[in-house]
Amino acid sequence: MTAPGTRPSGEDALIARYFRPLATDPGAFNLVDDAAILKPSGDDIVVKTDAIVEGVHFFPDDPPDTIARKALRVNLSDLASKGATPAGFLLTLALRGADDVWLAPFARGLGEDAKQYGCPLLGGDTVSTPGPLMISIAALGRVPAGKMVHRSGAKPGDRVVVTGTIGDATLGLDILKGGAAAAALADNAPAREMLVGRYRVPQPRNALAKAVRDHASAAMDVSDGLAGDLAKLCAASGVSAVIDAPSIPLSAPAATLLARGVVGIEKIVSGGDDYEILCAIPENRLEAFARAADRAEVTVTSIGTVIAGGSAPTFMDAQGSEIALKCLSYSHF
Amino acid sequence: MTAPGTRPSGEDALIARYFRPLATDPGAFNLVDDAAILKPSGDDIVVKTDAIVEGVHFFPDDPPDTIARKALRVNLSDLASKGATPAGFLLTLALRGADDVWLAPFARGLGEDAKQYGCPLLGGDTVSTPGPLMISIAALGRVPAGKMVHRSGAKPGDRVVVTGTIGDATLGLDILKGGAAAAALADNAPAREMLVGRYRVPQPRNALAKAVRDHASAAMDVSDGLAGDLAKLCAASGVSAVIDAPSIPLSAPAATLLARGVVGIEKIVSGGDDYEILCAIPENRLEAFARAADRAEVTVTSIGTVIAGGSAPTFMDAQGSEIALKCLSYSHF
Repeated sequence: MTAPGTRPSGEDALIARYFRPLATDPGAFNLVDDAAILKPSGDDIVVKTDAIVEGVHFFPDDPPDTIARKALRVNLSDLASKGATPAGFLLTLALRGADDVWLAPFARGLGEDAKQYGCPLLGGDTVSTPGPLMISIAALGRVPAGKMVHRSGAKPGDRVVVTGTIGDATLGLDILKGGAAAAALADNAPAREMLVGRYRVPQPRNALAKAVRDHASAAMDVSDGLAGDLAKLCAASGVSAVIDAPSIPLSAPAATLLARGVVGIEKIVSGGDDYEILCAIPENRLEAFARAADRAEVTVTSIGTVIAGGSAPTFMDAQGSEIALKCLSYSHF
Repeated sequence: MTAPGTRPSGEDALIARYFRPLATDPGAFNLVDDAAILKPSGDDIVVKTDAIVEGVHFFPDDPPDTIARKALRVNLSDLASKGATPAGFLLTLALRGADDVWLAPFARGLGEDAKQYGCPLLGGDTVSTPGPLMISIAALGRVPAGKMVHRSGAKPGDRVVVTGTIGDATLGLDILKGGAAAAALADNAPAREMLVGRYRVPQPRNALAKAVRDHASAAMDVSDGLAGDLAKLCAASGVSAVIDAPSIPLSAPAATLLARGVVGIEKIVSGGDDYEILCAIPENRLEAFARAADRAEVTVTSIGTVIAGGSAPTFMDAQGSEIALKCLSYSHF
C-alpha cells in the first residue's frame, strides 16, 4: 500500500509516465523539481514561444504524434532562422483529460523529435481545460554572443533566398478541408499525402542554422505566408524587395496544381505553415551560402533581390508584370 | 494610406499596442523579431512554465488585471522558491478575440507586475481559440552557478518553515463559489475581499529568494496545498516531517473560520493557490534566515521538523494527536 502522502497525483503519474523519459538533460532534474536549469556557456540564450490550438492550427483527428511534432517544430524553425542551436524546451499541455490512447503517441512523437533535433524537454505544466487541446512550447537555444540573426539587417542588393518549397502546407490544409486541391488530386494519393504531411509536420531547417548565422544579413522563418513574412522582414530592415514569382521553389504537386489553375500564385505565397527559412544573403556570400546549404542537404533557392525603398515587396510574373496580391498572410485577429 | 505589405495584421497591431510597452529589456528587440535574447552572465538560467485556464484557475469574470498578475506571479513564485532572480518571461495568450476592454487592463496589470518584480516581457505568442482563455507563461531567472535550491536537500533535524499565511486562497475560492466561508463572512466584506484577493492575486516571495538560497536545504512553493507539497518535498528528499498544525500561520479571517468550525484544518492544508514558500532550514541557520526574512519584510514561521523516514508527513493537533488527512492536494487529472 502506498502512503497517502507519497502516492503520486494523476498529474504527477502522467508526467512520470509520458514525459520523464523525454527529460534527458541533467538540468531537467528528471522533472521532479519545480524548475530546470540551463547551464551558462557564454553563448546568448535565444528564447521563443509558439502555441498551437486544436481546430486552429491542427485538426482534432490529426494523429497525436504529428500534433506533438508540429508543436515543437514550429519553435525549432524559429531557432533555425535565428542561427541558434536548440538547447531545450518547456511544454505547456492543456488537455480535456488524461487519455492514454492519445498521450502515448503524442509523447512518443515529441520524444523522437526532441532527440532528433537535440532539444530535450526541460520542464512543463499539464493543465486541464474544458476547451480545445492546446500545446504551448517555449524553446531555448544558444547562439554565439551577439550573433543572433535578426529580421532587420537586409540591405539593397542582397538576394532573397528561401529553403525547401513554398505553399505545400497551405495546399495540404486545403486538402484536409476538402477544397479545390483535394478534388484535383482525387486520384493521386501520394501527392495528397505529401502535401498533408507538409501541413501536419513541418521540416524545420535547423541543419542550416550555422550557414544562416555565417552568411545571412537577415532571416526569419516563413510561418504566416511568404508574402506577408517577406513584407515584415523588409519593414524591419527598412528596405523593399522584388520577387520573381516563377523562381519560387514549388514541389511537383504544387507546381501541377498551379499550372492547371487549381490554385493561384496568391494562395501559394500567402498561405501559412511553410516553416521554411526566408533570408537575405549578400551577393558576395551567395556562393558560400549555397555550398554550406549543400553540405547541410537543404535546398536553397534565390527568388529575388532586396531593393531600397519602403513599399511592400513586389511579386513579378513570367512576363515581368507585377502580380497584385490582396492577401499577404494569415492573422489570428 | 498604408501599403498592403506594411499594414500590420490584427495580431501585430495587438502586440504593438498592448505588449510592446512591457518589452523593456533590450533583448526583447521591441517584439519585432522572431525571438529574444537573454545575455549570458555566468549564472545558471532557471526556467519554469505554468499556465492558467479560465474556469479552472480563474473565473471568467475575474478582473483582467488580476488574471494577468496571477499568470505571472505563479511563475515568479517558483523562481523565488528556487532562490532565483527574475530575468524575463515569455507569454502565450490564447484569446477568443481581441477585446480592448479586456486586453487593456490585462496588459496594464501584467506590465505593472513585470516592472515591480523586475521581470520584463521577452516575447510571446497570441493565438485565437474557440475555447476558454488561457495564459501560459515561461519565466526565466538567474541563480549563481550550482546554487538553485532543490526540493531534495531536506535533512532530518531541519525546521519546516513557511512564509506568509496558509489557506487564504482556498477560502477565497470558497467565497467566490458561494461556499460555507461566504455565508459565514456574509457581514464581513473586508475579510471576504482579503481572502478573494489572496486567491486572485498571489504574493510571490521574491524578496526572500536570496535568503532561501543562502539558508534553505530544500524549498518549493506551495501551489497545490501545503500537505501535498510538503509530501512532495519530503519524498524528493527521502525524509518525513512532523508538523504542529496549531503553528501553521493563518490570517485573522482564516483563524476565525477555523475556530468557528466553518472550515476544518484539512481544507486549510490541502487547498491550493497559497504561493508561499515552503522550505527546510537547518537548525543552525534558522536565526540567520529569520533575520534575513525580517530585512526582506516577509513573515516566516517554523511549523515543524524534518524527521528520518519514508512515510508521509504527519500533522499533529494541539493535543499532540495525529490529524487524519484524506486529501492532501489538488490534482488536475
